[in-house]
Amino acid sequence: MISLDLIKEIARSSPTRIVLLVIDGLGGLPNPETGKTELETANTPNLDKLATKGVCGLIDPVSPGIIPGSAPGHLALFGYNPVSFNIGRGVLEAIGIDFDLKPEDVAARGNFCTADETGLVTDRRAGRISTQRCTELCQLLDGLVIEGVKVFVCPVREHRFIVVFRGEGLTANISDSDPQQTGVAPRVITAQSLEAGRMASIASQFIAQARTTLTEHHPANMVLLRGFSKQPHFPTMGEIYKLKPSAIASYPMYRGLAKLVGMEVLETGTTIEDEFATLKQNYTNYDFFFLHIKGTDSAGEDGNFDRKVKIIEQVDKALPSLISIEPDVIVVTGDHSTPALLKGHSWHPVPILLYSKWCRPDRVSQFSESACILGGLGRFPATQIMPLAMANALKLTKFGA
Amino acid sequence: MISLDLIKEIARSSPTRIVLLVIDGLGGLPNPETGKTELETANTPNLDKLATKGVCGLIDPVSPGIIPGSAPGHLALFGYNPVSFNIGRGVLEAIGIDFDLKPEDVAARGNFCTADETGLVTDRRAGRISTQRCTELCQLLDGLVIEGVKVFVCPVREHRFIVVFRGEGLTANISDSDPQQTGVAPRVITAQSLEAGRMASIASQFIAQARTTLTEHHPANMVLLRGFSKQPHFPTMGEIYKLKPSAIASYPMYRGLAKLVGMEVLETGTTIEDEFATLKQNYTNYDFFFLHIKGTDSAGEDGNFDRKVKIIEQVDKALPSLISIEPDVIVVTGDHSTPALLKGHSWHPVPILLYSKWCRPDRVSQFSESACILGGLGRFPATQIMPLAMANALKLTKFGA
Repeated sequence: MISLDLIKEIARSSPTRIVLLVIDGLGGLPNPETGKTELETANTPNLDKLATKGVCGLIDPVSPGIIPGSAPGHLALFGYNPVSFNIGRGVLEAIGIDFDLKPEDVAARGNFCTADETGLVTDRRAGRISTQRCTELCQLLDGLVIEGVKVFVCPVREHRFIVVFRGEGLTANISDSDPQQTGVAPRVITAQSLEAGRMASIASQFIAQARTTLTEHHPANMVLLRGFSKQPHFPTMGEIYKLKPSAIASYPMYRGLAKLVGMEVLETGTTIEDEFATLKQNYTNYDFFFLHIKGTDSAGEDGNFDRKVKIIEQVDKALPSLISIEPDVIVVTGDHSTPALLKGHSWHPVPILLYSKWCRPDRVSQFSESACILGGLGRFPATQIMPLAMANALKLTKFGA
Repeated sequence: MISLDLIKEIARSSPTRIVLLVIDGLGGLPNPETGKTELETANTPNLDKLATKGVCGLIDPVSPGIIPGSAPGHLALFGYNPVSFNIGRGVLEAIGIDFDLKPEDVAARGNFCTADETGLVTDRRAGRISTQRCTELCQLLDGLVIEGVKVFVCPVREHRFIVVFRGEGLTANISDSDPQQTGVAPRVITAQSLEAGRMASIASQFIAQARTTLTEHHPANMVLLRGFSKQPHFPTMGEIYKLKPSAIASYPMYRGLAKLVGMEVLETGTTIEDEFATLKQNYTNYDFFFLHIKGTDSAGEDGNFDRKVKIIEQVDKALPSLISIEPDVIVVTGDHSTPALLKGHSWHPVPILLYSKWCRPDRVSQFSESACILGGLGRFPATQIMPLAMANALKLTKFGA
């Protein structure tokens, strides 16, 4: 495993440009009726042409067998070991709704829950109240000030919300109140380091006030908090790769992740065509573009095989506009597999294709799971994509004399 | 490399069942006359059918080029890094003869050796005395009590035996007496930590008494001891994977290894059919089955190509009875290669096939070394088999959000 420090030593800035096209949840499983995966079913003449000229393979986002969440999946694509570069749950949820986190903020994931008259948790999700109800309840709790610390409460979805504590000198090192089971009382929040006492006290006061405010709002008559965390400090892609990186993504989670690793997030629209157009418009201003396609993953999660096929075909149609501006390196892959058959993220390796003037082409002439098995890149950890892309862009110097 | 701690966090119990069929020493080398390995020569319609429906690949038990012993080979299959999870030589030999080791016991590997009149070692193996002679000599030494510590001496094979010291508060941290060369005196046993002084003294007293007892038994007139060790404490497969694992093996070494990682060892017979029958009888009581076939390795070690082929064919014949009970995941592989041509364990990667409802099939339609090269699992470390099997049994939850 090559360290980011080593990459930093050998990376150099150059005028070449890299495009990392991430088709979220790209990998699939064969439709039992046809024996073909979503990608194999889709009509993808442009991807196939690029696969023919380029070199293909399969990546493991985290490790064989491990089902990646979106954050680990993307961190790996950006070259960060997803096991050692951790993002706290609170921060991740805040990123997911585009909350503008400050470096000093402490964020936590919240659940509206149901408690009985003695205070025992009877339903950790308050019967999965609607997002609209969640939004109303968040408004009741939002804006408190406790010991000079401002508390933001924002809805996520159904019973889920985030709490962000903004004040000076806060530390996130406190325990969860969520007991992760029913029939028991919420846990008392405790400081896990000396300086965390104040944060523990403020979080506990918030919970107490929330309980008072929510008394009459059964089934959502209490809150549970977990994953208190601050924005982690990651070395940026600019520092590591000497790149000027940008991100084009229509979903907040991916914009947030891109920001965390130092990418500039570009304004874009909601369609695939919008995203490709944004790339073209900004092409001269950056030398690395992370272009994120969300629809494939959503379709997979919904178990909608045909819709996933269609979105892959839409990406294929948009590809010539990208190829026409002749990026030095194009990488097409996914952050994990989302087979429609499994209706969720899966552990299966993800097809990857890399095209550059300097790649060593293999015999793969179709961009598909089964063809990529025989590709020249072999099967490899996703964290190695960035060094490969950098090398193909002639942005890495020799290691050792 | 994914840690066992991480697996522990994401593993969940579920009603699905995994069968790990280990054909010991499975991998081979081509017969110069036919160009086919043992596995390629064997008629294996059932394994080939399973390979067609499943996904194949090649594993490296330890690392490319490394020739695995049985212990590292199996530990890797069970998901334990065979380099960091070490079993002392004494313990390993004790396990190999089914000695019922207690947690407090200190075991050592012994050699009967030849010493000249001045006490210098002239033959570290006493002319490789017969196993029967070894057994007789062990009886002379067995049952001593030294400072309240009971000493067990049990024959292994030829000049090899084990000594087990049973008493309270013994620690294994002492040096070998075996000098690993001839023409020198045995080494003085020394304590390698403060609390090991008593053990060093007891071991030295045992050696002195053995020498007196053996005076008249030239060429076996002295003993050499090495690898003093206690049973290591490994996290169990139950703790890591939340499995209820069982082992079916007709050879003591493999039962011992299985016990070390917390499997329940099932009573079985000596034939392949017995072992498969045991699995069927116990199918509802466990959710993980390690089924060990020894004959292939023994045939390979004997250089008997044809016998190894026949045993593989016997396994193939037994396979339908396993398939008929529809395990959720079936993994077929070996702990290392034992090519008949090399008459011993070898470094060559080992074919693996994984079948589950949720695997992504490849184009491999034959279970063989050369076909597996092109398999969808690629070539990967054996320690990744367990996470893969767990994922395919839907026993792993998502890593990260």
